[in-house]
Amino acid sequence: MARILILNGPNLNLLGSREPEVYGGRSFEEYLSDLRALYEGRVIDHVQSNLEGELIDALQRADGACAGVVLNAGGYSHTSVALRDAVAAVRVPVIEVHISNLLAREPFRHVSLIGGACAGCIMGFGLEGYRMAIEHILQRG
Amino acid sequence: MARILILNGPNLNLLGSREPEVYGGRSFEEYLSDLRALYEGRVIDHVQSNLEGELIDALQRADGACAGVVLNAGGYSHTSVALRDAVAAVRVPVIEVHISNLLAREPFRHVSLIGGACAGCIMGFGLEGYRMAIEHILQRG
Amino acid sequence: MARILILNGPNLNLLGSREPEVYGGRSFEEYLSDLRALYEGRVIDHVQSNLEGELIDALQRADGACAGVVLNAGGYSHTSVALRDAVAAVRVPVIEVHISNLLAREPFRHVSLIGGACAGCIMGFGLEGYRMAIEHILQRG
Amino acid sequence: MARILILNGPNLNLLGSREPEVYGGRSFEEYLSDLRALYEGRVIDHVQSNLEGELIDALQRADGACAGVVLNAGGYSHTSVALRDAVAAVRVPVIEVHISNLLAREPFRHVSLIGGACAGCIMGFGLEGYRMAIEHILQRG
Amino acid sequence: MARILILNGPNLNLLGSREPEVYGGRSFEEYLSDLRALYEGRVIDHVQSNLEGELIDALQRADGACAGVVLNAGGYSHTSVALRDAVAAVRVPVIEVHISNLLAREPFRHVSLIGGACAGCIMGFGLEGYRMAIEHILQRG
Amino acid sequence: MARILILNGPNLNLLGSREPEVYGGRSFEEYLSDLRALYEGRVIDHVQSNLEGELIDALQRADGACAGVVLNAGGYSHTSVALRDAVAAVRVPVIEVHISNLLAREPFRHVSLIGGACAGCIMGFGLEGYRMAIEHILQRG
Amino acid sequence: MARILILNGPNLNLLGSREPEVYGGRSFEEYLSDLRALYEGRVIDHVQSNLEGELIDALQRADGACAGVVLNAGGYSHTSVALRDAVAAVRVPVIEVHISNLLAREPFRHVSLIGGACAGCIMGFGLEGYRMAIEHILQRG
Amino acid sequence: MARILILNGPNLNLLGSREPEVYGGRSFEEYLSDLRALYEGRVIDHVQSNLEGELIDALQRADGACAGVVLNAGGYSHTSVALRDAVAAVRVPVIEVHISNLLAREPFRHVSLIGGACAGCIMGFGLEGYRMAIEHILQRG
Amino acid sequence: MARILILNGPNLNLLGSREPEVYGGRSFEEYLSDLRALYEGRVIDHVQSNLEGELIDALQRADGACAGVVLNAGGYSHTSVALRDAVAAVRVPVIEVHISNLLAREPFRHVSLIGGACAGCIMGFGLEGYRMAIEHILQRG
Amino acid sequence: MARILILNGPNLNLLGSREPEVYGGRSFEEYLSDLRALYEGRVIDHVQSNLEGELIDALQRADGACAGVVLNAGGYSHTSVALRDAVAAVRVPVIEVHISNLLAREPFRHVSLIGGACAGCIMGFGLEGYRMAIEHILQRG
Amino acid sequence: MARILILNGPNLNLLGSREPEVYGGRSFEEYLSDLRALYEGRVIDHVQSNLEGELIDALQRADGACAGVVLNAGGYSHTSVALRDAVAAVRVPVIEVHISNLLAREPFRHVSLIGGACAGCIMGFGLEGYRMAIEHILQRG
Amino acid sequence: MARILILNGPNLNLLGSREPEVYGGRSFEEYLSDLRALYEGRVIDHVQSNLEGELIDALQRADGACAGVVLNAGGYSHTSVALRDAVAAVRVPVIEVHISNLLAREPFRHVSLIGGACAGCIMGFGLEGYRMAIEHILQRG
Repeated sequence: MARILILNGPNLNLLGSREPEVYGGRSFEEYLSDLRALYEGRVIDHVQSNLEGELIDALQRADGACAGVVLNAGGYSHTSVALRDAVAAVRVPVIEVHISNLLAREPFRHVSLIGGACAGCIMGFGLEGYRMAIEHILQRG
Repeated sequence: MARILILNGPNLNLLGSREPEVYGGRSFEEYLSDLRALYEGRVIDHVQSNLEGELIDALQRADGACAGVVLNAGGYSHTSVALRDAVAAVRVPVIEVHISNLLAREPFRHVSLIGGACAGCIMGFGLEGYRMAIEHILQRG
Repeated sequence: MARILILNGPNLNLLGSREPEVYGGRSFEEYLSDLRALYEGRVIDHVQSNLEGELIDALQRADGACAGVVLNAGGYSHTSVALRDAVAAVRVPVIEVHISNLLAREPFRHVSLIGGACAGCIMGFGLEGYRMAIEHILQRG
Repeated sequence: MARILILNGPNLNLLGSREPEVYGGRSFEEYLSDLRALYEGRVIDHVQSNLEGELIDALQRADGACAGVVLNAGGYSHTSVALRDAVAAVRVPVIEVHISNLLAREPFRHVSLIGGACAGCIMGFGLEGYRMAIEHILQRG
Repeated sequence: MARILILNGPNLNLLGSREPEVYGGRSFEEYLSDLRALYEGRVIDHVQSNLEGELIDALQRADGACAGVVLNAGGYSHTSVALRDAVAAVRVPVIEVHISNLLAREPFRHVSLIGGACAGCIMGFGLEGYRMAIEHILQRG
Repeated sequence: MARILILNGPNLNLLGSREPEVYGGRSFEEYLSDLRALYEGRVIDHVQSNLEGELIDALQRADGACAGVVLNAGGYSHTSVALRDAVAAVRVPVIEVHISNLLAREPFRHVSLIGGACAGCIMGFGLEGYRMAIEHILQRG
Repeated sequence: MARILILNGPNLNLLGSREPEVYGGRSFEEYLSDLRALYEGRVIDHVQSNLEGELIDALQRADGACAGVVLNAGGYSHTSVALRDAVAAVRVPVIEVHISNLLAREPFRHVSLIGGACAGCIMGFGLEGYRMAIEHILQRG
Repeated sequence: MARILILNGPNLNLLGSREPEVYGGRSFEEYLSDLRALYEGRVIDHVQSNLEGELIDALQRADGACAGVVLNAGGYSHTSVALRDAVAAVRVPVIEVHISNLLAREPFRHVSLIGGACAGCIMGFGLEGYRMAIEHILQRG
Repeated sequence: MARILILNGPNLNLLGSREPEVYGGRSFEEYLSDLRALYEGRVIDHVQSNLEGELIDALQRADGACAGVVLNAGGYSHTSVALRDAVAAVRVPVIEVHISNLLAREPFRHVSLIGGACAGCIMGFGLEGYRMAIEHILQRG
Repeated sequence: MARILILNGPNLNLLGSREPEVYGGRSFEEYLSDLRALYEGRVIDHVQSNLEGELIDALQRADGACAGVVLNAGGYSHTSVALRDAVAAVRVPVIEVHISNLLAREPFRHVSLIGGACAGCIMGFGLEGYRMAIEHILQRG
Repeated sequence: MARILILNGPNLNLLGSREPEVYGGRSFEEYLSDLRALYEGRVIDHVQSNLEGELIDALQRADGACAGVVLNAGGYSHTSVALRDAVAAVRVPVIEVHISNLLAREPFRHVSLIGGACAGCIMGFGLEGYRMAIEHILQRG
Repeated sequence: MARILILNGPNLNLLGSREPEVYGGRSFEEYLSDLRALYEGRVIDHVQSNLEGELIDALQRADGACAGVVLNAGGYSHTSVALRDAVAAVRVPVIEVHISNLLAREPFRHVSLIGGACAGCIMGFGLEGYRMAIEHILQRG
């Protein structure tokens, strides 16, 4: 199973225009092209949604269909028991990624509620974090 | 009004395959067939959604159309002020059901935020809890 | 083992006269007669005590002697580690019942300390909750 | 840019029928007609959704298209980091409005999580609060 | 109804010998004789028990039989939901009395859980507090 | 020293008109006339101020001039370290009085910060509490 | 009753010179002239005091004499039970106004203790908030 | 005074059958025989009760009659202010013993409320802890 | 600008008589004479008030008129947002002084709310702390 | 393996001179001589260090070399996750000992963070606690 | 500057033998050999210490000498303000690595105190996390 | 005893290069030369260590050898019970100094755990604070 799913949560469709001093000035689509070029033989799916439940839907669909999921749940990371349950319910390994270092921001971003159900977490490395997660999925794969 | 709505929240579509040691090995559809057979003269509607807002939509539609709602809001039970407001806003009685005993699990599952707006709560009896709730709705009805 | 024990805690001997707008206007004895009539072939024992330790005593005696215990520990539900330990120490299944919906009342009633050791919990259905618990014990029995 | 968006969150479609002693007996549509009559030369858009993510979608679409957004996020106001992030991500000014005075209600309504990202907050003035917010947007505009 | 019940909780039978620098050097029996001499025409009952449940029993028996109850629940004052429920369940007025000023002692004595259900509270006046409470009961009587 | 000072804090000048269902319908002046008639040979001073610092001033002036102070600090009771320090700094005994039973009201009224420095506390007996405090001061002599 | 009272708390006499990046560079007196010109037929009283108790005094005097009070209690908003009690004790409607958006500042400014007793709250609109409050008082008037 | 009292609280009568993986498979009576054989010349009393107040009674009776008390208050250790007061009120030294290491169990067992009033604490050594406590009492003589 | 203001808060007028074991047996006036003799060419103003708002008034007046303020706000240090705002609003440097070491006293004295707005803090050195603060003001001067 | 390690943490080298009313007037070396005389055939090692990491080093070296470790980690007991991890990482049983009864001292000493990883805990028995721990290690063999 | 420092904190010298189900069965030295082979042209330094202060020393020495630091501070991650200060004080980028997913373990491991000062964090990927961090340092280099 | 010890904790060896906007641009050695020149007849010792335990060692050695200790424990100030115990264990007076005003920085720096055991505290005056502390030691000496 060479498919990998990148699952992006709320407001990540604004990357490149939203608070560039925090998130950088590049859109995710541009970055994704580079990623796909880098991992040519692989299928890298990308789903972005602002809806908590659609992220759950996508996660459930990925189960059995992908080798791994790279999940940046944005603001839902800190509040969603439902998303945590979804991560725990699927068998596909899920890697949590955050672009910025959440521990260096407001206190309500310091703890990830979904993190305890993920395989691991990478944060603070900008968009590069997505590539690191994919690299890991391919290696364990 | 003999209609009853069973409203299932996030990840309950995975019943039977998700963590069977917690939730049992049976899918909700199988269980629902049995329920419908048991209460033949009644219409038992079933809505499952992973989206918080769709649960609110369904709850609002049930108002005036059903004799009662059996609500298992899954992970949203602990975090959704919006769903609590919806339960308080409708006139149809809502019974909260949980398959497992939440008090025997992680601390973040110990308190139901929506529970204060429901008529009552049943938890820890597996799928059987749904039948107990229906039984109660029919009796008060 | 067809015996079932209903174990009522502090102030439940006042049912019918105490705050009838919360607990209803019927005494537990009247309700118990109906229950016994309904489950004729069964022995339904009833113990009420205002003493935490006597509830523990009764719970210990029920172990091995009953098919199940229906426990409404009243105010001790929120504070008694000792009672929780007793529930965990016995092998007989214990169902927690509350007449009112505790989540709709004062915050110090929102969490049941003993609940985590019980098999399940039913609350908010008035005296009817006792019958629902008995029904469940008989079915699993 | 004379467009203004009124963005209403969960259960606000029930205005007029839901808890009239708290929210008044008038539907939002009736009130909206009056508003539009009052501000004839302006376009006042109205989006109501029970879905957190759809509110985020609407907020993103309003960016660059409206002079201001009047946001009543209902129950999501207290729990949604994702919605807060969306308000912070857009450049259009967002005014938070609540029909009732949240500080006079249950403690879990006392703090607005999204408020820190909004330009200002108006609460406790009934439907009138929407007009006050529009007035302000037009003046700064 | 000229009867008044003084209800003393755990360790108050040790008055006179226990920590005399906090509670004084006089036994409650001596003090009670004086009280009875002072209020000759009245019946002043006295119950002391170290058992939480026996205090509840006594309180229930006093209902309808006394004009008022003077309650010093000692250590149970801070922890007993069951005793609070009993005070709320009876119709006889209950005056809470403490010999020492609880606010000048350890933090776990600063809040009385039962106090919210009592008619009033008197503390810090030594044994004299009992007489002040009786005086008040007779006056309202 | 037969002088006694009654020191009333913020809003107690409104007694009789302010929330009569909580504080009763009688003004403090009327009650004070009765008190003075009752204790003819005594001088009962009365100071009311809405200013925290004026209460401290009055307390300091009473030191050495009065046999005791009856203090109802109103809303400052829960927040004023400065007033607590003043009570601790003077040698005259200070009795804390509250008209209503604070434990039966909002949580922010449950703990008195100044109480730990007072000799004792009387609450929940209406205006009668002032007389009980005076009685006690006269008895301790 | 066409009088309206603007009641400004501590440090608001420094407007124009104090932290202009937060509060703007205009003195309140200049703004007040404009307001009075705008509402010519009305009497707009203005009281500013750095003393908590003088704010309470002014609020009490306004009762029965004004159609409404616009209250910016500054730092006392977060700590004064006494001021809250005063707002609750008067019958005149009180509108809470803050120049800056408190939710975007330090955590100890996030909750207004007096807010629960006010009719409504307006914050984050600069000096403009005073006019919005007056407008509302006149409309309900 | 060669008497020593072993005072066992709630559920300790179940030792040997209750959760043997935590508490071991031996009944307390068996262990007690061994203890008595080991300390032949001494009288070792044993009281077990599930009632909080009976433990207080026994503790009070031991005062003046025993050289020391070995107290395992079970679940009451964490919640009983009344029992703590009793330990503080008696002059006989009281050694707190727990069979398991409470710090390795659920958080609500991590702090002993009664411990602050005891002479010392021994926990985690199984039944052996009782002997260690007796040994200490005999040595301090 | 050689003027320096010493600003003393509530109960500091009692120095010398109030709790001498904590605050020493010398009045502030005596100490002030010595200070003035020591710094002959300087004007050392002294304001003491028990009123929070008068401290704010004095602080505002000192702005532009003094080289520095030595502030001992007593009990207001821990509770006054208004005083903190005043310190932040003035340009004159403010040095916080406490006679005793607050960290060695009750927990409610451990944190100074106004401290974050002051230039620095000196505590635990008795009256000597005032001189240390003046010395510092003159040096930065 | 007859070796036993006594591992003493910060400030325990001061025993005998430091706060003798809390820790007694005897140096640890004197006590150690007695201990070694008592257990002649055994090797009792003693390491004291004020450095957290040296305690970890010593604990690691003891693994496989000793039959047991008696650990008094002093002030590190309450704060050191690293030491707790070390205790959990070694196979040698570790007994926690404290000279004083920590529960009778300041709140920040009430919970031992390392305790959950130790085999058991003995506290409040003075230096005698070390002997009790050694006795236990020898018995478990 | 091609040097990279791997800085390992307390107990990481036990890797391979300590709790292998959590940390794996391989020693760090074996893993380090592989790493060095992989990055032949680079110098990879390795410092392990159980002493908090030695980690700070090493971090300071690395400043100006390395292109990056890979820091696994073990148990100090959660408690060390001093280490956090050191990370903030140096200019060399520091990447935090944890072998296990801390969010899936005990609550006291959920928040990293030093994390807010690091450039980023990688956890839950076993020893592989070190390589991911090195990879990142080389890329940004 | 004319010796004085300046004891500097973690990262203070970086003064002059570390975050100069917070700590200034001067090294401690330069400052120390000035200090020694200023107090010629005195011996001013200086110890800096990044190791918590070495600070404890130095503090113990200073006891009996110095007239006073000036302690800047850096990050250990907020977390070290062991260091607090050391300060309490020695007889030499210890003055706590911090270069910056901790109350104006992150919340985890607001409370000094060691402060309660020190004689006094000086913070916010830059390096000048060391001189103020020495001055005080010489005066009390």
